Amino acid sequence: MGTAYSGAAVIGQSGGPTNVINHSLIGAVLEASKYPKLITDFYGAIHGVEGILKENFINLRAESLDNLEVISHTPSSALRSVRKKPNKEECKVIFDNFRKHGVRYFFYIGGNDSAETAHIINDFAKKAQYEFHAFHIPKTIDNDLQETDHCPGYGSAARFVAMAFMGANLDNRSIPGIYIGVVMGRHAGFLTAASVLGKKYPDDGPHLVYCPENVFDPEKFVAGVEKVYKKYGRCVIAVSEGVHDKSGQPVIQALKKEVETDSHGNVQLSGTGALGDALSSLIKNNLKVSRVRSDTFGYLQRCFPTIISEVDAVEARTVGEEAVKAAVSGHYEGSVAIRRVSNKPYAVDYEIVELKKVARHTVVMPKEFFEGDSQVSDKFVEYALPLVGELPDIGRLHDISILKGKAR
Amino acid sequence: MGTAYSGAAVIGQSGGPTNVINHSLIGAVLEASKYPKLITDFYGAIHGVEGILKENFINLRAESLDNLEVISHTPSSALRSVRKKPNKEECKVIFDNFRKHGVRYFFYIGGNDSAETAHIINDFAKKAQYEFHAFHIPKTIDNDLQETDHCPGYGSAARFVAMAFMGANLDNRSIPGIYIGVVMGRHAGFLTAASVLGKKYPDDGPHLVYCPENVFDPEKFVAGVEKVYKKYGRCVIAVSEGVHDKSGQPVIQALKKEVETDSHGNVQLSGTGALGDALSSLIKNNLKVSRVRSDTFGYLQRCFPTIISEVDAVEARTVGEEAVKAAVSGHYEGSVAIRRVSNKPYAVDYEIVELKKVARHTVVMPKEFFEGDSQVSDKFVEYALPLVGELPDIGRLHDISILKGKAR
Repeated sequence: MGTAYSGAAVIGQSGGPTNVINHSLIGAVLEASKYPKLITDFYGAIHGVEGILKENFINLRAESLDNLEVISHTPSSALRSVRKKPNKEECKVIFDNFRKHGVRYFFYIGGNDSAETAHIINDFAKKAQYEFHAFHIPKTIDNDLQETDHCPGYGSAARFVAMAFMGANLDNRSIPGIYIGVVMGRHAGFLTAASVLGKKYPDDGPHLVYCPENVFDPEKFVAGVEKVYKKYGRCVIAVSEGVHDKSGQPVIQALKKEVETDSHGNVQLSGTGALGDALSSLIKNNLKVSRVRSDTFGYLQRCFPTIISEVDAVEARTVGEEAVKAAVSGHYEGSVAIRRVSNKPYAVDYEIVELKKVARHTVVMPKEFFEGDSQVSDKFVEYALPLVGELPDIGRLHDISILKGKAR
Repeated sequence: MGTAYSGAAVIGQSGGPTNVINHSLIGAVLEASKYPKLITDFYGAIHGVEGILKENFINLRAESLDNLEVISHTPSSALRSVRKKPNKEECKVIFDNFRKHGVRYFFYIGGNDSAETAHIINDFAKKAQYEFHAFHIPKTIDNDLQETDHCPGYGSAARFVAMAFMGANLDNRSIPGIYIGVVMGRHAGFLTAASVLGKKYPDDGPHLVYCPENVFDPEKFVAGVEKVYKKYGRCVIAVSEGVHDKSGQPVIQALKKEVETDSHGNVQLSGTGALGDALSSLIKNNLKVSRVRSDTFGYLQRCFPTIISEVDAVEARTVGEEAVKAAVSGHYEGSVAIRRVSNKPYAVDYEIVELKKVARHTVVMPKEFFEGDSQVSDKFVEYALPLVGELPDIGRLHDISILKGKAR
């Protein structure tokens, strides 16, 4: 901690967009406006580090409060994003550009790579004995950051996945068959696991949930599907795009050979529909079920307007504010972590943790969030339900049969 | 017209479910409760005609008003659905089962096949001189029924598609590339065309819209994508699953050969992701663009909870009510058609048309709803916008650059 220097701030957004990432942006901009003497200007970097490298800065204080409010509710990164992780040389250029423009504060909204970028830039500042404040504002629908209880962006994407499966389950109940929904998540299954959150009746799907944390065994998969199908006459399945076999090979590659031998032609390895199509073929080739369908939720799950968790929106805004508060109170660096203080009623607190603790590594779902390799546990539901907010109520007819064969 | 006989009513739901199909069900049930002397019982057939054939009827009047209200807001067919179009012999069994259970009223919620089913059953009743009232209640997300201005179910599915593309466009703007969204619709492009309804800024996507009404030419497609990509550095594309080449062959089959020759392996013909993947490959093989992604919206677009057009919900409920009103007022048969009385302000009226006018044939988008083969016209937007309801507002930063290179 030290006395904060007066200077400009730069904020950027990185990686995959979310439905609440602009809440973090607007939260930081508005909070900083309370400290005009410390933070003299507030710049936005267009396309994250790419914009900083090109000195493509915009004046965020030239925006009206009305417009900032609309933007906070607009999905996807208003400053536009970037998939670039700058190397050391580029981080040096970034630091030089900051110094050139009198930038004393840097806020980077993103995942663990963004935390690392902020960390490296901060090191350059330290070595140059340049008073600097570098902060990471957490964001990821994958929910895979260290230190924080959960990540802003996850709750809203999880809400989309939960509601998508509520609809898919009702659809599947009305016209029975086997339905596979492929959900984003290469290493962590948090988003796929959220598929169960809208289940209400005992026979509601998804009936099987496959996450990258568990080994995916095609034979066990087929047997599992068959069992559910025999019980309910239908089966709804949630699968992470990142599921892999016991050798660590992605399932889409592992299935290739098997799928090639079927009569329908070959499976395409690239392209987003491939895993769902391959799993459909696997079922069709092994079970006598004619109606097998798969959907890959793809990009819909991260930026669908209005499918926003209120809790997520508030927290996304708060982590933006907290990063600014920490900076102006003299912290030199840090990432904002969310601590869950209580689950019922749900309550959180915020804490500044060291950048290096968030940089580089990611987390996956703990074992206690699973029951076997195709079910999630009640513990996961307890953890995730407060993050997605109240889900819409759905109803069923009681199916009170009239006396069969009763003639008049 | 004649005097309505007293007896039981049966209602069923057929074909793909929608987000408002239960409004039609509940609308009919509640309206009929006003005429207990004419409609003595109100039965639901489980899985449509399949339930009638098996005499699988439930007592809808045994449900509480509270539960019916929740069900009206629940996506997908509460009575469950069926893809079966009964043949003449089965229609005879259906009629016999109706007579056996004292059924004098039949309401069938569905598309043109459902209208035909009601028509055939009504013919049996006529020949048997059995006083009978057969009504079709229109429902389809494809919006392809004759006689009616538009179909209940379309507005809500169109709202999903419009909002999905709003999100996809914002996502694509933040991380540029080429994005293809494949939308339901084998013959009619109404749903795919709805992708443009949320466009706000001149450079917003979708930039190209391909519907089954126009011939899809792969070369023109690639050229069109290249032109947009050169102009905006990105391109968002909406494609109907039913697009076909000039010989009438589905594009997924036409592309097979071309895709097979690429280095990434072969395209799978079956499975829902195949068209999107094939079009991605087509672009990758012909343009120097690394980031090409495709999503197939699949089943998400028809039963996503809360993505409901208010106009659509009200109209779905009203067509259910109108069918019952027509039946108890002495009509023997008919389908409820929606007439647009005024567009600004939007106002509709309802009319009973003959079943045979709705049965069998379907409609596609009129020529005036297109501009060329990859754009929809303002006339379409005027037609469709009132049906989806007000879309959420989105905002943009003004990108007011700070003086480039200004050093402090």
